[in-house]
Amino acid sequence: NSSKLPNVKTTIFTTVGNLARKHKALDLSQGFPNFEADPNLISLVNNAMMEGHNQYAPMQGYFGLREVISEKIQTLHGHQYHPENELTITVGATQAIYTAISAFVHVGDEVIVLKPAYDCYEPAILVNGGKPVFLQLDAPDYSIDWEAFKAKITKKTKMLIINTPHNPSGKILSQNDMLCLQEILKDTNILVLSDEVYEHIVFDGQQHQSVSRFPDLVQRSFVCASFGKTFHVTGWKMGYCAAPKALMEEFRKVHQFAVFCVDHPVQRAFAEYLKTPEHYLGLNDFYQRKRDLFLKGLADSKFKFIPSQGTYFQLLDYTQITQESDEDFAKKLILEHKLASIPISSFNVNDRDDKVLRFCFAKKEETLERAVEILSSL
Amino acid sequence: NSSKLPNVKTTIFTTVGNLARKHKALDLSQGFPNFEADPNLISLVNNAMMEGHNQYAPMQGYFGLREVISEKIQTLHGHQYHPENELTITVGATQAIYTAISAFVHVGDEVIVLKPAYDCYEPAILVNGGKPVFLQLDAPDYSIDWEAFKAKITKKTKMLIINTPHNPSGKILSQNDMLCLQEILKDTNILVLSDEVYEHIVFDGQQHQSVSRFPDLVQRSFVCASFGKTFHVTGWKMGYCAAPKALMEEFRKVHQFAVFCVDHPVQRAFAEYLKTPEHYLGLNDFYQRKRDLFLKGLADSKFKFIPSQGTYFQLLDYTQITQESDEDFAKKLILEHKLASIPISSFNVNDRDDKVLRFCFAKKEETLERAVEILSSL
Ligand SMILES: CSCCC(=O)C(=O)O
Ligand SMILES: CSCCC(=O)C(=O)O
Repeated sequence: NSSKLPNVKTTIFTTVGNLARKHKALDLSQGFPNFEADPNLISLVNNAMMEGHNQYAPMQGYFGLREVISEKIQTLHGHQYHPENELTITVGATQAIYTAISAFVHVGDEVIVLKPAYDCYEPAILVNGGKPVFLQLDAPDYSIDWEAFKAKITKKTKMLIINTPHNPSGKILSQNDMLCLQEILKDTNILVLSDEVYEHIVFDGQQHQSVSRFPDLVQRSFVCASFGKTFHVTGWKMGYCAAPKALMEEFRKVHQFAVFCVDHPVQRAFAEYLKTPEHYLGLNDFYQRKRDLFLKGLADSKFKFIPSQGTYFQLLDYTQITQESDEDFAKKLILEHKLASIPISSFNVNDRDDKVLRFCFAKKEETLERAVEILSSL
Repeated sequence: NSSKLPNVKTTIFTTVGNLARKHKALDLSQGFPNFEADPNLISLVNNAMMEGHNQYAPMQGYFGLREVISEKIQTLHGHQYHPENELTITVGATQAIYTAISAFVHVGDEVIVLKPAYDCYEPAILVNGGKPVFLQLDAPDYSIDWEAFKAKITKKTKMLIINTPHNPSGKILSQNDMLCLQEILKDTNILVLSDEVYEHIVFDGQQHQSVSRFPDLVQRSFVCASFGKTFHVTGWKMGYCAAPKALMEEFRKVHQFAVFCVDHPVQRAFAEYLKTPEHYLGLNDFYQRKRDLFLKGLADSKFKFIPSQGTYFQLLDYTQITQESDEDFAKKLILEHKLASIPISSFNVNDRDDKVLRFCFAKKEETLERAVEILSSL
């Protein structure tokens, strides 16, 4: 029984999380809020259960939810995904990503992955017999060299995975980035998997450049989104995939047998909750205040940083403090200073060391203030 | 972009369901209850949300839930799955099945599937490049000829999928069946995927012969179970996979990237609810009463049947009424008699026609009485 994923170990999120708990460290490692969800949203789930929506939802998702998502994207980005056959509700963005890859990546197909990258792309490619082709981006700003990207394309390239706003770098793709990408892909059949789970967490008045704003990209793309991240309920495991009909048809063939459908009462709740745009449009400011609180506190510290442009993550460069490896320093911070973060090496090719740690600022003010105290003392 | 599942069409459940709705037919097709879930179970989910369990659960599932499952299996079947590394909570049994197949089936591996079969096994095998090898069982009782099974084994056989109690036939595997299977597999490396989602719906005082009762099977098996089916909440999409440590390790490598984890508040609720064995031990009698009500009503009808031994499905042979195909007759029943069922041909190899329809009796008494009226009039 040879393993299909011989190199998968316990993820960095689990390893660091366990270490943090063991040493009672303040936890800014794994990306999730330590504050409460909106009680009104919880009530909506409870209502849906009490009203008896406890049996299978349709395979594609509750139609009312797909409708409101379609309207939301149309309003924000000007493209209309047809609710009937271009949107599918998934078990978080993770399942959307895994399913899109499973439906399209054949044995031997190449998939270009920009590194640093969140850890779920590579295993999904490998399980399906595909070959991840990495383009390693560089500190400090991890911007994309589109010529270098172009050089990675071969006849076997089936798909490119992008992620904006970007975890872990906090970088957002600019309109120019998107136009470069559109131009490069113009005469190819390459698919784009666009992980946009932090779409509503974008700072300094910038515009999230969703793939759905670029017609020539839309027709070859899957957009993956997450309600858990937008509504502070990562544990409810719900998101969606948007793609043009022909791609969505294949996506659903796998979705249907991978999970069949998704939690019904939670879908009903989001269908209602999403009708109020204030529930997500305020998120940019909400998280910008947290980022600013965190960074202001660090202005006089030894850490160097470029302010995060989006996501709830901030990278900090620690070269002025120590030359230890990312992993060693992250560990030392937990053991000696009771503060947990994620070493960026775990997102890089060959665990390349950048002397950079990632901190999640989706935390209460008091948590962020305590973290600032610790980091400033170094 | 050639399809990985070129032959997958809209499932029979969706097709028939849509037709039933359109013609306002009484729906005994898709398997789900048309009565309410226990309000106490709903309260437990609400409590978990109010208590703030709204962020990621551990990847393997909430430990308290894995613990109570472990104890339950130990009590019922005498085998202890270690909660730490032999149990994983999944998005229904469907995800457990898809994940086990994805983690173990390599390109070219053969997987033996007994037909008639529920529709999710074959696509999962195909997406992973495996080859389904079918053993077609025969009406009226669809019992397994173990010699015929043995003849299907080749050097490439990686896995066998069994399902007891069996959907759609309502047949349960006997202790003797399990011992035959154990004997045949003794000197092989063949894995067993055991779909036991109807484990608590077994009639006439018989014992569910879980794979976990047979030590020589346990070590090579995945047991997949469903809370949705046991607790009348198919729309909550929760189940689990049990397997020995070495198999579970590989299972989790895929699970982690396929969904990462499962709805947290619902896991908390089931952890509490499962502590009371009455919540599931009464299910046999509850559904036996429904089966008996349904069959008593049909005693003088033109339908022939063997009473279902388990599941909430009953097969009815209609040869005394018409020689139409299963699909045609199922359609006619909807259009002309306003009663929906599933043609068994959709579960057979090459849609073989058995002149048999499947009826779901997980329905209110009044629904079953109305169905009996219609069927008796034919
Ligand atoms: C599933 S690990 C979760 C969170 C996350 O996205 C991150 O920390 O990068
Ligand atoms: C996901 S279709 C659902 C129900 C079922 O298991 C069946 O009807 O066979």
